[in-house]
Amino acid sequence: MTTDLDLQNYIRNIPDFPKPGILFRDITPMLASPEAFQQAIDLLAEEYKDQGVTAIVSAEARGFIFAAPLALALKARFIPVRKPGKLPFDTHSFHYELEYGTDTLEMHTDALEPGDRVLLLDDLLATGGTMGACIQMTEKAEATVVGCAFVIELCGLNGRRNLRGKDVFTLIEYP
Amino acid sequence: MTTDLDLQNYIRNIPDFPKPGILFRDITPMLASPEAFQQAIDLLAEEYKDQGVTAIVSAEARGFIFAAPLALALKARFIPVRKPGKLPFDTHSFHYELEYGTDTLEMHTDALEPGDRVLLLDDLLATGGTMGACIQMTEKAEATVVGCAFVIELCGLNGRRNLRGKDVFTLIEYP
Repeated sequence: MTTDLDLQNYIRNIPDFPKPGILFRDITPMLASPEAFQQAIDLLAEEYKDQGVTAIVSAEARGFIFAAPLALALKARFIPVRKPGKLPFDTHSFHYELEYGTDTLEMHTDALEPGDRVLLLDDLLATGGTMGACIQMTEKAEATVVGCAFVIELCGLNGRRNLRGKDVFTLIEYP
Repeated sequence: MTTDLDLQNYIRNIPDFPKPGILFRDITPMLASPEAFQQAIDLLAEEYKDQGVTAIVSAEARGFIFAAPLALALKARFIPVRKPGKLPFDTHSFHYELEYGTDTLEMHTDALEPGDRVLLLDDLLATGGTMGACIQMTEKAEATVVGCAFVIELCGLNGRRNLRGKDVFTLIEYP
């Protein structure tokens, strides 16, 4: 396992995206480095390999990029969470609050079962709205949340307050 | 490498989705089987491992689920193609025809360079519109398309006619 790269060197800062005043943390340089991308997956796998994870839940679209390789590394099921109308089977819908307005995410009703030990993964922890919704969908299915993992955490937005006291693991932290 | 599973057994048929008369091929059972999902990635990696692939281009969102692990397996760069407004750096936009209307996809301008050998990957080949757009974006960057790979091909829709004679590799074919 390679762990000698400073992953923050593979994040590009984009000022004023998606709107003025926002400094966007762009992961595409990491994805364009097979070594850095592999190290990120290895570090996540190392953190959770002994925790009996049976499923990884992740919301589209950037979350999928990390969740799919991690699911294979942990030999866990990959459970996609998607915007409304994208999942073809019966779904649970979950509505949640955004800074302005609300949003909805869906999960297949047969995706999780009681007894599942679930790792929730996303690329970025900002305000925690999406991850908070994933926690509630997971617990509605009577599965156990092992933890919430992120590639990047924007600590100043205090997104952890929306994560209901769950364990959080992040690879890169910004103030 | 495990190759003894019949991957078609991990595709679920959903009638009348997303609209009446359409039989949707649902990949979530494959994603929920670590063995089947790994076999799919292994078969794709085996096909392309000696072809000098430097980058994998894939359009959101389901494509990411297969492209990310395959990029790691081939030690190739992962290049996301996204809907407008999602990629934060400078982008090339590409407009393409759908059955009704048009759609647009974007790729970062620094994602590919001349000399790159690019594998294009998506979960499903239907009419080939999305993949045709990815081919044109790749060639606009003066990179070489090594091939177009899919998990599922709906052969009756004749999507290959939109793939400009490129090599096509699919894991599961439906009439």
